[in-house]
Amino acid sequence: MSEETTTETAAETTAKSGTAPSRRSLIGWGGAGLALGAVAAGGTAAALRTGSDAVPAALSGDAVPFHGTHQAGIATPVQDRLHFAAFDVTTGDRDALIALLKEWTAAAALMTAGHEVGEGTAGTQPEAPPDDTGEALGLKPSRLTLTFGIGPGLFEKDGKDRFGLKSRRPKALIDLPAFPGDNLDAARSGGDLCVQACADDPQVAVHAIRNLARIGMGKVAIRWSQLGFGKTSSTTPDAQTPRNMLGFKDGTRNIAGTDTAALAKHVWVGEKDGPEWMVDGSYLVARRIRMHIETWDRTSLKEQEDIFGRDKVEGAPQGKQRERDEPNLKAMLPDSHVRLAHPDSNGGATILRRGYSFTDGTDGLGRLDAGLFFLAYQRDVRDGFVPVQTRLSRNDALNEYIQHVGSAVFAVPPGVRDKGDWWGKALFS
Amino acid sequence: MSEETTTETAAETTAKSGTAPSRRSLIGWGGAGLALGAVAAGGTAAALRTGSDAVPAALSGDAVPFHGTHQAGIATPVQDRLHFAAFDVTTGDRDALIALLKEWTAAAALMTAGHEVGEGTAGTQPEAPPDDTGEALGLKPSRLTLTFGIGPGLFEKDGKDRFGLKSRRPKALIDLPAFPGDNLDAARSGGDLCVQACADDPQVAVHAIRNLARIGMGKVAIRWSQLGFGKTSSTTPDAQTPRNMLGFKDGTRNIAGTDTAALAKHVWVGEKDGPEWMVDGSYLVARRIRMHIETWDRTSLKEQEDIFGRDKVEGAPQGKQRERDEPNLKAMLPDSHVRLAHPDSNGGATILRRGYSFTDGTDGLGRLDAGLFFLAYQRDVRDGFVPVQTRLSRNDALNEYIQHVGSAVFAVPPGVRDKGDWWGKALFS
Repeated sequence: MSEETTTETAAETTAKSGTAPSRRSLIGWGGAGLALGAVAAGGTAAALRTGSDAVPAALSGDAVPFHGTHQAGIATPVQDRLHFAAFDVTTGDRDALIALLKEWTAAAALMTAGHEVGEGTAGTQPEAPPDDTGEALGLKPSRLTLTFGIGPGLFEKDGKDRFGLKSRRPKALIDLPAFPGDNLDAARSGGDLCVQACADDPQVAVHAIRNLARIGMGKVAIRWSQLGFGKTSSTTPDAQTPRNMLGFKDGTRNIAGTDTAALAKHVWVGEKDGPEWMVDGSYLVARRIRMHIETWDRTSLKEQEDIFGRDKVEGAPQGKQRERDEPNLKAMLPDSHVRLAHPDSNGGATILRRGYSFTDGTDGLGRLDAGLFFLAYQRDVRDGFVPVQTRLSRNDALNEYIQHVGSAVFAVPPGVRDKGDWWGKALFS
Repeated sequence: MSEETTTETAAETTAKSGTAPSRRSLIGWGGAGLALGAVAAGGTAAALRTGSDAVPAALSGDAVPFHGTHQAGIATPVQDRLHFAAFDVTTGDRDALIALLKEWTAAAALMTAGHEVGEGTAGTQPEAPPDDTGEALGLKPSRLTLTFGIGPGLFEKDGKDRFGLKSRRPKALIDLPAFPGDNLDAARSGGDLCVQACADDPQVAVHAIRNLARIGMGKVAIRWSQLGFGKTSSTTPDAQTPRNMLGFKDGTRNIAGTDTAALAKHVWVGEKDGPEWMVDGSYLVARRIRMHIETWDRTSLKEQEDIFGRDKVEGAPQGKQRERDEPNLKAMLPDSHVRLAHPDSNGGATILRRGYSFTDGTDGLGRLDAGLFFLAYQRDVRDGFVPVQTRLSRNDALNEYIQHVGSAVFAVPPGVRDKGDWWGKALFS
């Protein structure tokens, strides 16, 4: 058979699949909310096109609502897996950036509801690249949340006010000070924009970041990204606190996602805080914390427990029985981690932690490149991460076994309120 | 309160938790099979010590049996997540290596059954490092399998017969030839030993590799390791074939783990194949295949489908309706992936694929370092991977979008038969 004949056959196949989508393609596109007639008439593309108002309701209870007062992915119960990406904005064109943010928002609304981006991949336009990369086709929403943040570089970079936003930079969005022991890699730090993708299925989180990167081609480029394989924090009071790569439960006394008073006090930007475009938003600090696990593993159990201020198996504060017992800070070594990180040691400073463990292969010296990708949300970085980390970086007994190798800070705007809203709209208006 | 007093309190706590383990510590140690009396008398350590015969039965149906004719993790239904590690043997002492392999085997038997290594972490010896790193304490077995392999370097390295094994190297364990397009990174290739850890919970897989590395300190060092976030193959005929990072179902027609005839023909080393120590074992080829997903995402759907020889949504071979329909190879382009990889194009060469998708951050150029970590088992590398990859590397239309950047080959011995057996025993006997 000649090559020409073969090609024809393939084209026929493609054409056929474009006009009669399989059951799976309907599922992938969110067919549940669509009349079959519309699909047969080629209506799928229109109904699900990025930016359309016709996004059907979530396919299953596995979806976290995208629209709301606050962005999802902060107070939301912590999902199992993470893909986090920081982007550099490579365009200097304000209108192009705004267009991208609108497109991203529409894509995020679709993907978090378990749909594909744009027309799907069933070949309504076989001669064009698919609007979605396709590797999440047939997968459930998996509680995907996409949380968007804005780094200092969007307001000013290299002394330039690229987008006329310099005067709108929140005072709370500071450049983090240098902390003792920091060993930051510029290639794993900073970023003009960020998206935190959390989901129970890693393929869903990876797919979401990849599609946003694809949509942003020519306007943004991924500066760094981090996969997290296991959550280390819980925002659900009755859930087990997961263990970090040192084998300990840490962050037990986290802010609960249901504790609206604590969220209002420590996490959400209030009306009096300003600026107006950030009200109901939050500030995110991301730190890549490498753990020297080989050294840690040679440390005695007693020393490990003294360093943390907890027992290892139960996770109880030293001198207590249960993980969630109120710690007696004075029963712990002065430089123990729990004692130093406790709000009482930091003038009440409290942050919402949402970190993930990572393992990124080896470091060339036969050691696992593993640790904690620390994510913390707060109402003001100056009252949250900065006082806590100032104290920890100076005194924490744990410092012998960890090193901060990446750092970034982002303003996380309020939630997208409705179909007419988009990520950053209030900032650009 | 003085520091001294504080220390005393901590020590008391530790001592207490050592003699009265919490419910969770019992669960972590596999307490279900243990009488409480034995625990109270400090019997836990003895019962669960590495090498002991008293390993209780699995805690839940989530455990895959460790002992058997073949190693688990080959024909076993593919688990969701992977942590794969290749080790260099750093000791030249044959007895030390044998001692390590015995210790590894005992630890693997414990961990795959959902137990901790050694005495657990509850402080029976608070002044010593814990025998287990602890981060999987309280987690289920999660279908963990640990599959052990031996690389060419154990038989001969730099012209030296380090362990007196040179004459025992199987003929089927060849050094892979260079294939067109290979761009192999030595730091991600090779290895004297390997362990493939597969589990449904990534923390369980990461924990297992880390503990084996810890046990091997001073005798072996991790040369490279790879985390896989999502399986790309299925060895279960009725399961959906997962999608790879190009959005396609690939490896649909894999060998089923229940197809004993196909396994005997294509995967397990037979008595006539030899050498004797490899009978019921297999050979593993590992390839880190980087996918240029940004370029792929700009390719038209039609071209993508032509390159694979499948439709994207359903995964059906071109010209067919369903994923598992028998492909009509002549309906595909001559250089399409499915056509070239099919046994009919390779003199019947058939391999059992068990690959995983990976995403390891970015490559410094704003592109995701993502792709397929390809794992394939076969009865003889010369009749399996080599003919298939020879053809693919020369002709596959997919080569424009992928690049092989890491490579390794291992002899995978038969299963550990019983408590007296250990990884590689027949080789060293």
